[in-house]
Amino acid sequence: MVIGHECAGIIEEIGSEVKNLVPGDRVALEPGIGCWRCDRCKEGRYNICPDMKFFATPPVHGSLARQVVHPADLCFKLPDNLSLEEGAMCEPLSVAVHACRRANIGPETNVLVMGAGPIGLVTLLAARAFGAPRIVIVDVDDYRLSVANNLGADGVVKVSTNMQDIPEEVERICEVMGAVGVHVTFDCAGFNKTMSTALSATRAGGKVCLVGLGHNEMTIPLTPAAARIDCREVDIIGIFRYKNTWPLCIELLRSGKIDVKPLITHRFGFSQKEVEEAFETSARGGDAIKVMFNL
Amino acid sequence: MVIGHECAGIIEEIGSEVKNLVPGDRVALEPGIGCWRCDRCKEGRYNICPDMKFFATPPVHGSLARQVVHPADLCFKLPDNLSLEEGAMCEPLSVAVHACRRANIGPETNVLVMGAGPIGLVTLLAARAFGAPRIVIVDVDDYRLSVANNLGADGVVKVSTNMQDIPEEVERICEVMGAVGVHVTFDCAGFNKTMSTALSATRAGGKVCLVGLGHNEMTIPLTPAAARIDCREVDIIGIFRYKNTWPLCIELLRSGKIDVKPLITHRFGFSQKEVEEAFETSARGGDAIKVMFNL
Amino acid sequence: MVIGHECAGIIEEIGSEVKNLVPGDRVALEPGIGCWRCDRCKEGRYNICPDMKFFATPPVHGSLARQVVHPADLCFKLPDNLSLEEGAMCEPLSVAVHACRRANIGPETNVLVMGAGPIGLVTLLAARAFGAPRIVIVDVDDYRLSVANNLGADGVVKVSTNMQDIPEEVERICEVMGAVGVHVTFDCAGFNKTMSTALSATRAGGKVCLVGLGHNEMTIPLTPAAARIDCREVDIIGIFRYKNTWPLCIELLRSGKIDVKPLITHRFGFSQKEVEEAFETSARGGDAIKVMFNL
Amino acid sequence: MVIGHECAGIIEEIGSEVKNLVPGDRVALEPGIGCWRCDRCKEGRYNICPDMKFFATPPVHGSLARQVVHPADLCFKLPDNLSLEEGAMCEPLSVAVHACRRANIGPETNVLVMGAGPIGLVTLLAARAFGAPRIVIVDVDDYRLSVANNLGADGVVKVSTNMQDIPEEVERICEVMGAVGVHVTFDCAGFNKTMSTALSATRAGGKVCLVGLGHNEMTIPLTPAAARIDCREVDIIGIFRYKNTWPLCIELLRSGKIDVKPLITHRFGFSQKEVEEAFETSARGGDAIKVMFNL
Repeated sequence: MVIGHECAGIIEEIGSEVKNLVPGDRVALEPGIGCWRCDRCKEGRYNICPDMKFFATPPVHGSLARQVVHPADLCFKLPDNLSLEEGAMCEPLSVAVHACRRANIGPETNVLVMGAGPIGLVTLLAARAFGAPRIVIVDVDDYRLSVANNLGADGVVKVSTNMQDIPEEVERICEVMGAVGVHVTFDCAGFNKTMSTALSATRAGGKVCLVGLGHNEMTIPLTPAAARIDCREVDIIGIFRYKNTWPLCIELLRSGKIDVKPLITHRFGFSQKEVEEAFETSARGGDAIKVMFNL
Repeated sequence: MVIGHECAGIIEEIGSEVKNLVPGDRVALEPGIGCWRCDRCKEGRYNICPDMKFFATPPVHGSLARQVVHPADLCFKLPDNLSLEEGAMCEPLSVAVHACRRANIGPETNVLVMGAGPIGLVTLLAARAFGAPRIVIVDVDDYRLSVANNLGADGVVKVSTNMQDIPEEVERICEVMGAVGVHVTFDCAGFNKTMSTALSATRAGGKVCLVGLGHNEMTIPLTPAAARIDCREVDIIGIFRYKNTWPLCIELLRSGKIDVKPLITHRFGFSQKEVEEAFETSARGGDAIKVMFNL
Repeated sequence: MVIGHECAGIIEEIGSEVKNLVPGDRVALEPGIGCWRCDRCKEGRYNICPDMKFFATPPVHGSLARQVVHPADLCFKLPDNLSLEEGAMCEPLSVAVHACRRANIGPETNVLVMGAGPIGLVTLLAARAFGAPRIVIVDVDDYRLSVANNLGADGVVKVSTNMQDIPEEVERICEVMGAVGVHVTFDCAGFNKTMSTALSATRAGGKVCLVGLGHNEMTIPLTPAAARIDCREVDIIGIFRYKNTWPLCIELLRSGKIDVKPLITHRFGFSQKEVEEAFETSARGGDAIKVMFNL
Repeated sequence: MVIGHECAGIIEEIGSEVKNLVPGDRVALEPGIGCWRCDRCKEGRYNICPDMKFFATPPVHGSLARQVVHPADLCFKLPDNLSLEEGAMCEPLSVAVHACRRANIGPETNVLVMGAGPIGLVTLLAARAFGAPRIVIVDVDDYRLSVANNLGADGVVKVSTNMQDIPEEVERICEVMGAVGVHVTFDCAGFNKTMSTALSATRAGGKVCLVGLGHNEMTIPLTPAAARIDCREVDIIGIFRYKNTWPLCIELLRSGKIDVKPLITHRFGFSQKEVEEAFETSARGGDAIKVMFNL
């Protein structure tokens, strides 16, 4: 079983009916193929198609290979000023773009991001590109928060993993955010504590988007008055993958509204030894955000 | 402190600038008065106005009284074919109407209702009036389910209070609902178990509306694959009171699209003794759905 | 070139991968085949796909034939209680359903329909099924208005073809509609005069949907104060064909919420002579609403 | 009758219940006062309140005066880095912000602006702040187009006032816009020709917003295939004034996302002579965009 679903490459061969591409074109690949027959595909929500074929999701092989066969309409041509690496970054960026769309981020939406890992950081970049006037990001790790700072967060808040600190931390978050408060929180960590903090920190009528799930076991406590979604109309929005995001991601990268290059911290070749080293680097965390293979 | 917030009455006196009413008019009262100065009021979400004055919410007295003073624009004239009792029922019905609006119920929305208490039953009636093609209702109590049946539920499912029964009960619910599945679930009970069942039973891309909270302590478990909102884009919508619902409620009652009379099971006068009896009847449950005072 | 795009039939043969159908199934056919590669298809608006293949739109033949080959996912199985004729009626009904969806018709939307021809009448039926509390229909023809009356219009207004009568006719329409006024107008005729009347009669903040275009040349006069869309935020919504409507149409017919049988006024066989007669009948108008061929 | 509705000033005196302001505060004034009793106010569309009291709309006097009395919740405090002149510019900017909201402008919306007068130019600025990736602006006047260029338009197109030039001009607009095409057109001129061009140039599924009306008499021709809204689902959106825009305008100006200073081309005192001169300057057009009185 081959893994991998974030990739870009060069067209080697095209089918006889393909008109949008020629061999030699540099393209980013959207990994999931909808069935286009079910009602979800037809309604434009192909990301939740029950019959989707998705890279690296059995029985479909992934894209960590020298060659892949893929539908032409899911291969998006890269403009000259974008590298293949930036093309591959369209995949994680797509998660963030889809989340920003579902949460309707715009110039009036103050945003809180829980977690400054790779998904938290692309969410920060995407929210900025969607016009969010104020973005605060929260993490347990100083290094990650410093990266978030460098990427343009308006404020960062360091937190613990202790549930009892929530009230005090929410207070600090709200101070950093300012009087208007948090309209939308993206939980890019997905722990009991991050979700509880998210629900407490978001203002009435706002939204909490669950972008990543840290644990298989998760319970959302609705206990403290501040966190009660039922008396504050705070909605919880589920986010799964993405749809129709590649053209926008490429445009945001092309125009410079988003720069993902600082997120690519390590690069490896494709020899057995380098591949092993790459996975170790990624697993170790530390200063590794995104690790790239160049074939 | 006077309690009560579901009421209707007869206009005795009007202010000098009131034009929509005259003494003798029979009216239903919307209990909450927005500040009309905050951004939520101005955006049309006055139900979450932080400065709302609401009947029976300190320091504001409730409506269980022989006379109340209330703004004319929150007194809605009843047509001749509606009784004061039906007018008072606009309040609980408003909760259901607001929930149906937020969940966007229409002729394509299969609806599951968790709980066949007063709010569950008015939600059933409202979802029907909004065009829901198929409505299934769930409860632990046979009598309540029989009432739901009489009010026109397409299916009823009796459940336990045991968390371990959820998978089997979800299966039964889905069978009763049919192949298309549940688009929107209204949790009108608000227990860990009802919410878990709701999240499991709702199809991908659907919505769960939390209408009532049974406990102060509530945790939403997102554990079992079927209940994971993050990979199925099932949104959780918080419902708090209502806004702009009285005209629609009155119209639905006037036209006969909704009949709330079967929900009014007991009637009392306003003597000390009768009032006590009324509260006992209501607290005892049994066959009591809605208990009315006639002054 | 074969014409025809409203049809239903019996499956004779299926492809090797078809799982939802077997020979002998009675099905209604959705006539348009999207490309499923362009951004509009992928966003769920396949009705405006620039590469759609549509029955009877060159170079694609129509369905007025003894046999057609069609994708399985566009063949919708009819329940036992629906005839093939009712199945064929899903096509015009789909136009109305799509219009009601785009206009967001529900239990709070008073509806005005301009024109009581076949599209006007199915729009009346669909708006009713979507919960519209009050529907008024306008035409120049007494017979058509009497049909509308029999189909359940709450009010009918006879009008002229004279532009100068608009103010007086708008007044009459508003009287018949009642104090709340018109939230949505469907212009199912598409003449200068019907569109002008629609814009004048619709209340501020409402919508006018242009469902049918009577003339190739049409100008929308925005002159009289009452018709100015710019100072009243009346939106004009364009309606083109339909998308994802067959399952809902079949459900509305199956459940009896809509009965299209009264609209089928004439039936013909498929001999040369009968076909000619059928087209003459349809062109002559009079009491002919929908003319069916039974093969 | 005093005219004027774009203004800012310094608080001299406050009512006894006012808490958000103190004498000496510099504030921008939102000119319209809703009734907060009608259904439109309560639904959050107070801009179309039939009982709105609006500066300079009889019988309400305008703001071109040394002192005005105004509700505290419509006086918005200016941050230190904004001048009173910039505060006054919140009014025309509000029209543009309201239009961008209604048209749902974001990072995926290519925008065409018809007319480079004051409203066209603030619409350009607002669309940019809402994230529009590509904005093209059209006018008959070279000077205005050069201003648009300096304000950051991605492309400008000079057009004639001749209806027959539409097809060729639409072609040029589409070339300048690029392959994806126009998602939303704002018609800030409001002539037959600009509206026809708008309808032709906007892609299927897009929107045309009518922001300004040049003539009392206006007809929208739906003739040429390209302009037919009925077969392309191009919606026409009416824009009337604004609602809840001041906080956003102030934030956009404060953060520097929008700079309106280049639009203030002329300044006058408040003597009889200077007032006359000011109106002459404004009426003469030429290089005058916005003319300010400093009292």
